[in-house]
Order: sequence, then C-alpha cells, then structure tokens
Amino acid sequence: MQVDVYASVNDAQPDDLLTRTVIVIDVLRATSTIVTALAHGCRAIVPAETVRQAMKLQEAGDWLGGERSCQKISGFHLGNSPLEYRTPELAGKRVILTTTNGTRAIREAQTAHLVLAGSLLNASACASAALSAERDIAIVCAGTHDAFSLEDGLCAGLLVRRLERLAGKPVGTNDFGRAMKLAFESAEHRLAETILGCANGARLTKLGFREDVLFCAQTDRYELVPALADRELVKF
Amino acid sequence: MQVDVYASVNDAQPDDLLTRTVIVIDVLRATSTIVTALAHGCRAIVPAETVRQAMKLQEAGDWLGGERSCQKISGFHLGNSPLEYRTPELAGKRVILTTTNGTRAIREAQTAHLVLAGSLLNASACASAALSAERDIAIVCAGTHDAFSLEDGLCAGLLVRRLERLAGKPVGTNDFGRAMKLAFESAEHRLAETILGCANGARLTKLGFREDVLFCAQTDRYELVPALADRELVKF
Repeated sequence: MQVDVYASVNDAQPDDLLTRTVIVIDVLRATSTIVTALAHGCRAIVPAETVRQAMKLQEAGDWLGGERSCQKISGFHLGNSPLEYRTPELAGKRVILTTTNGTRAIREAQTAHLVLAGSLLNASACASAALSAERDIAIVCAGTHDAFSLEDGLCAGLLVRRLERLAGKPVGTNDFGRAMKLAFESAEHRLAETILGCANGARLTKLGFREDVLFCAQTDRYELVPALADRELVKF
Repeated sequence: MQVDVYASVNDAQPDDLLTRTVIVIDVLRATSTIVTALAHGCRAIVPAETVRQAMKLQEAGDWLGGERSCQKISGFHLGNSPLEYRTPELAGKRVILTTTNGTRAIREAQTAHLVLAGSLLNASACASAALSAERDIAIVCAGTHDAFSLEDGLCAGLLVRRLERLAGKPVGTNDFGRAMKLAFESAEHRLAETILGCANGARLTKLGFREDVLFCAQTDRYELVPALADRELVKF
C-alpha cells in the first residue's frame, strides 16, 4: 500500500485526490475542532470556504462556527477553539464551519473517493478507518496560507507510523512522508513543547489560545473519525 | 539570525533570494559533485541549464559534465558522479556542468547576494562560510522535478544544526526548517541507510550508482565551499 504525504493541497497529485482515501490534517485547529465537536454530540460539520457561503448554507437550527486571523467571526455562535465545542448545547446540532486553511483544504479534496479529517487527537482511529477502505492513501497537510505547518507534518508522520503498525509492515511512502515520519520520531516525547514552539503554536499562544495548543497536541484522545459524506463531515 | 529552509527553489520567497545568503543543496548528486570537483583541483564549475547552453559556454580547454536521467550525456567528458571528478586530469580545468535539478536551482538563485553550494560532504564548512557573510540565510533544497527529496532535507537539517552550534544559540527558522532539523536528528546515526532507502537513493542504486550514494552520504569530508562568482562556482 502506498501512503504519500503532501505539504499542502496544492502539492498533492490531482489523480491522488480522485482515486485515493484522503486524510486532511489541520491540527491547529480545524480538524482538531471537528473531531472534538463530533465527539461531543455535534451531528455534522459543514465546511464552508467563506463567511458568506457559511451564512448561505445555514438552515434553521444550525450554528455558525469559524475564525479569521484566529479570532471568532462576529455574529457567529462559535470560534475555532476545540474547547468551545465541548458544550452539551451542541448535541444533535449541525455546525457550518469556515476557517482560513483547514475547511478550505477539505473542500478542495472533496472529489476524492473518501475524505477523512485527521488530527493528533484521533490519529490511531483515523489510520484504522483509512486502512479499512483498502485503497492507497494521500495525507494532505492543510498548512497556513500555502506554507507548511510543522504540527500538520508531525501528525502526518504519526499517521504513517500508525498505518505501518496496523498494516504489520512498512508501507510505501514518498520522500516527504519519510521526512515527516523521521521528524515525528524525534519530537514524539516532547510533542506539546515542539508544537508550542512552531509558528502557529507561538502565534496562538500570543493570542491567548495556549490551552487550545496543548489540547490539540494530545494523541489518541478520541476514537472518532470525521468523514465527508454529501458535503458534511459526520462520524465514519 | 533567521535561517529558513525551502523544499524547492519555487517555494522560496523571491525577496529571500535577493537579500540573503542562499545555500543550494542537491546531495544526489550535483552539489556533492561540485564540492568534490573543486576539492580535487578543478578551477571552476559553470552551471548550465541545458545541454545546448553547456556547449555554448564551453571555451578552449573546458570540459563538459552532466547527466540526463542520471546518465552521462553523450559526447561529454564526465557525467554527474562525484567519484569521476577525483581524477588528477581535472587540475586547473573549468567544467561546464548541466544536471536535471541542482544546476538549475543554482542558476535560479543567482540573483542572491551570495550563493553557496552545500552538501553533506561540506556541511560544517558551508555553515561556517554562510555565517561569515553576516546575513540571514535561505537554504534551498533542489529536489527532483519540483518534488521534495529527502536527502536534501536531511542536509538542510544538518546545516541548521551546524549553524546553531557555530552561532552558539538557537537560530530562528521556519516550520519547514524545524521539521528538517527534527528529521536529521532521527536519521543522524543511520544516514547512509536512510539515503539508500529514499527515492533518489533507491533509483541511483538500481542504475548502478550505489557507491555514489554512499559517497554523498558522508558528512564533513571536505572543508571546501563552492561560491557563485560571475556565474562560476569557485572556492569561497
């Protein structure tokens, strides 16, 4: 089985996005937030690219969530902090979510056979779900405005490791996947510290979201995998 | 001091290529070959993008070197194997060199304040030369046809480490630089094995160039740093 990792959705081979199982990663914070929301009773997350599109997709009873420049959008129910999504009020609700990088990457990958949302919080469950689809896998790091983000790369490296463990053998991967696996192996025992020190970790900490970064740096907290079905992310 | 690493010359910020000291890396094999050639008496290497351009740049007494699809170009004196460039016949000669990725990356970076050729073979010397220029540094991985190559990334990670050691403190770096440093730290004690297993390492081995890969995987074999001056790479 081939498991290739891409630094951004633009780097991915268009064919891979059609034929493979795609795992989109935006550790800080979109995919971590989506996993947390579904784990706390949210029925579905609808990724939207723009604020206008989010408002257009909203139906009666839906909540709006998202951020611009890391801050909650004015008039929205929720921002993009996973901690906010642990409220019992979310039970059974649908959330239309628009973020700067993660939700855009999910929408760009939506032509794929199967799109899963991966994060450190659900890495093992995500690897297991991807493996069950019995196709080659493309792991796409959302990054930040087309630049690579370390926390997404580390999560990709962890996923390659978990996939190897579950498959019981080394899997074929591209050089970027090899590099991310090596990077994860170096950082494994100081993951929170490493992520606090990278560009997004430092930026979020400065903006008062240090607890978000620490929350998102946890591995395998949830068993749940969001999967795209009819433009909504629901439990796989 | 800021030391940013880029997966390819296209990823680099255009401003960085103007104002910074640029280190171009093509471990397999262009920059390893250039370092080896200058260490064995070659007077200068002239990077050329195409075979036609190489032949046009050739003056009386110059040799032609280079590869296409890893193989020596028909009619050229030398291919792109560093081992070939250890001949005493090269003493005092100029070589016009055209390769698929490395020489192109060097030419694309040539507007920079200072362009150095880096490889595992001259990593410490290269870090020291770059530091002496007292500017921010951009480390550009040549890659392979615009895709990231692991061996270049590992060399970039080693350079960041060497720069930190020489500077006596952590240097500022982008997330890609952080990832490459972590990857190098994982692979440091099995560098040859790791490089033999990556895409270019496996390809060159298959084509009969295993000795080249092992040669290029050595760290700090040479003290010498090629620098671009008037479109020629000469000793810094």
